[in-house]
Amino acid sequence: MRTPICDLLGCEVPIFAFSHCRDVVAAVTRAGGFGVLGASTGSPEQLEVELAWLDEHTGGRPYGVDVIVPSTYDERAEVPPAELEAMIPEEHRAFQDRLLAEAGVAELPADERARLRAELAAGRGGMTPDGARRLVAVALAHRNVRMVVSALGAPPPDVVEDLKAHDVVVGALCGKASHARRQIEAGVQVVVAQGTEAGGHTGEISTLVLVPEVVAVVGDRAAVLAAGGISHGSQIAASLAMGAQGVWCGTIWLGTRESELDDFERTALYATPTEGTARRRARTGKTVRMTRSELSEAWERPGSPGYLPTPLQGVLYNEAHARVVRARRGDLWSFPAGQSVGAVTGESSVGDVMFRLQSEYGEAVERLAALDTRENLS
Amino acid sequence: MRTPICDLLGCEVPIFAFSHCRDVVAAVTRAGGFGVLGASTGSPEQLEVELAWLDEHTGGRPYGVDVIVPSTYDERAEVPPAELEAMIPEEHRAFQDRLLAEAGVAELPADERARLRAELAAGRGGMTPDGARRLVAVALAHRNVRMVVSALGAPPPDVVEDLKAHDVVVGALCGKASHARRQIEAGVQVVVAQGTEAGGHTGEISTLVLVPEVVAVVGDRAAVLAAGGISHGSQIAASLAMGAQGVWCGTIWLGTRESELDDFERTALYATPTEGTARRRARTGKTVRMTRSELSEAWERPGSPGYLPTPLQGVLYNEAHARVVRARRGDLWSFPAGQSVGAVTGESSVGDVMFRLQSEYGEAVERLAALDTRENLS
Repeated sequence: MRTPICDLLGCEVPIFAFSHCRDVVAAVTRAGGFGVLGASTGSPEQLEVELAWLDEHTGGRPYGVDVIVPSTYDERAEVPPAELEAMIPEEHRAFQDRLLAEAGVAELPADERARLRAELAAGRGGMTPDGARRLVAVALAHRNVRMVVSALGAPPPDVVEDLKAHDVVVGALCGKASHARRQIEAGVQVVVAQGTEAGGHTGEISTLVLVPEVVAVVGDRAAVLAAGGISHGSQIAASLAMGAQGVWCGTIWLGTRESELDDFERTALYATPTEGTARRRARTGKTVRMTRSELSEAWERPGSPGYLPTPLQGVLYNEAHARVVRARRGDLWSFPAGQSVGAVTGESSVGDVMFRLQSEYGEAVERLAALDTRENLS
Repeated sequence: MRTPICDLLGCEVPIFAFSHCRDVVAAVTRAGGFGVLGASTGSPEQLEVELAWLDEHTGGRPYGVDVIVPSTYDERAEVPPAELEAMIPEEHRAFQDRLLAEAGVAELPADERARLRAELAAGRGGMTPDGARRLVAVALAHRNVRMVVSALGAPPPDVVEDLKAHDVVVGALCGKASHARRQIEAGVQVVVAQGTEAGGHTGEISTLVLVPEVVAVVGDRAAVLAAGGISHGSQIAASLAMGAQGVWCGTIWLGTRESELDDFERTALYATPTEGTARRRARTGKTVRMTRSELSEAWERPGSPGYLPTPLQGVLYNEAHARVVRARRGDLWSFPAGQSVGAVTGESSVGDVMFRLQSEYGEAVERLAALDTRENLS
């Protein structure tokens, strides 16, 4: 399954792993794929620690970093977290607290709450234009960082220039063909065409529809990766048949023993069927595909006060999520995941997954070739 | 692209065309594909006329019929239309009438309204268990009908038996792997795995996710067709790589000159982008993916009285739709269509589409084979 992007980025197979967990990024990279660390929720100092660790654990192989460089500036993004807490309307806070209290979920102990808020405070800067630039600067100081991907549209021109000056490949996620067009014009070299079935922030167009559209728009001006719903090697064959040069997966790594999820969360994930996700605004105020739970659905039902704008909804929801994890309540646990979640049914390792994907890919290619031959013979 | 289902059903290529329009069904069948006539909205007498015409216009080739055989019985489905009209709450009727009046859309002339209601009355029986059995009986009297497909789950045991006794292949649409499991147990031989991106009644799982899941569940006990979002030959290669034996398309035929849409509707369809559809309940009370318009969206907004249950919502909406078509108002026109709609941008013929799909398929297969060879050589 080698495609030109393997030469561009220096990996063996075009299987890209998006993860917030450095162990996953390292293991995929060592196994011949290309790991991409989701860095937008951490501080520059944290990112420096992660990348130093990755440099030590990827055997000199190149890897990537994913940041959110907002093209539109949201003033609230730089408001200190303590002020944000004060901006949350009493009605919304009471709604969530009542819901959890009625479900018997304890409040956070004061020290845990303080630690959670400090973590949020440290990480929040990454979502602002300047914060993202600081993250990019950290990434550029690590020469094994071979690609920086912008999760929300094309990075601004100065960031693109800076990356290219350092010979770092510029990637971006897109959910519509029109996004891809703008990204190509902005100098993006790797367009990740992410379908609605993906976990996290997604659009409405499915991967099967989006990939051929983006391939047609992009032509030979950039490489296209297919993202969203990919958990099986036959889907990699499908993606390459549609003109993608590789696949970008997130959800399938959550179930591996290398992932950041603890045992409780992992068990909840394994129990979630394919139809157990939905695009909901409960987590950030923006639409995120995540596993459904009583908590996520309560925000949708009559009696909900409605969603707060970003980042207020996230500040409120984060604490609820921490309470749910601490109480080990699978019925209230929601986590960003795509429709691939149904294929994640038990513990495996990154190495197992990488091997399985490639075997299944081989079978799918042979299946198609056999059909083709049969036709030629008839 | 020949697969075993071509031998089973007697077609040359496994491209299935679902259409309410006999001209599309005939043209696809003549071009080597397999046309399937959507019959559930017509009367047995109408179906007899259509099938007699198809027998004359398919050159002796086999084709299919799609019916809705409800497994759960809805009492309202057999209520005479005049009584249904009386069951529509004044609030809902007033909401729709006000919306159209404010948009300057005239009421239907009395004779047109009478004709529309008579049509609805004649067709409504098809949605009941007995009505569907009458449609099946008509289909079985035409020996070129080689497959009967049930649009909502597996047909009841007596219908399956009857079909098999006549050597007619039994198909069913499914939107979840669990549906496929039940369908196989009920004797279904062709499972159409229809993703959320399809037009009409759809579920939430995408085609790319659904197809490998259904293939895994079905094994070699049935043939799987991929449906939803398919407008390009590379997606056929993708579907076959994932283990489907063919593809089932609906939306792409709407733009052909053979389709049932008039010039106004066709023009509105060509102008609809990929992101111009949504799953909405305005048309039938159940979730239907259709092109968005001011009319469909008004039912979603604050001020909407909410949706009526099936079939009341449909009775109300049908008249609004007829008014909109008569007034040629593209801004208010919604029509069942999938995300393939963005690929339908101008007039073509069924023959053109069939040729294009096969050329694109060939290119995609070659693209994948070339990658594979490159890997083997390296």
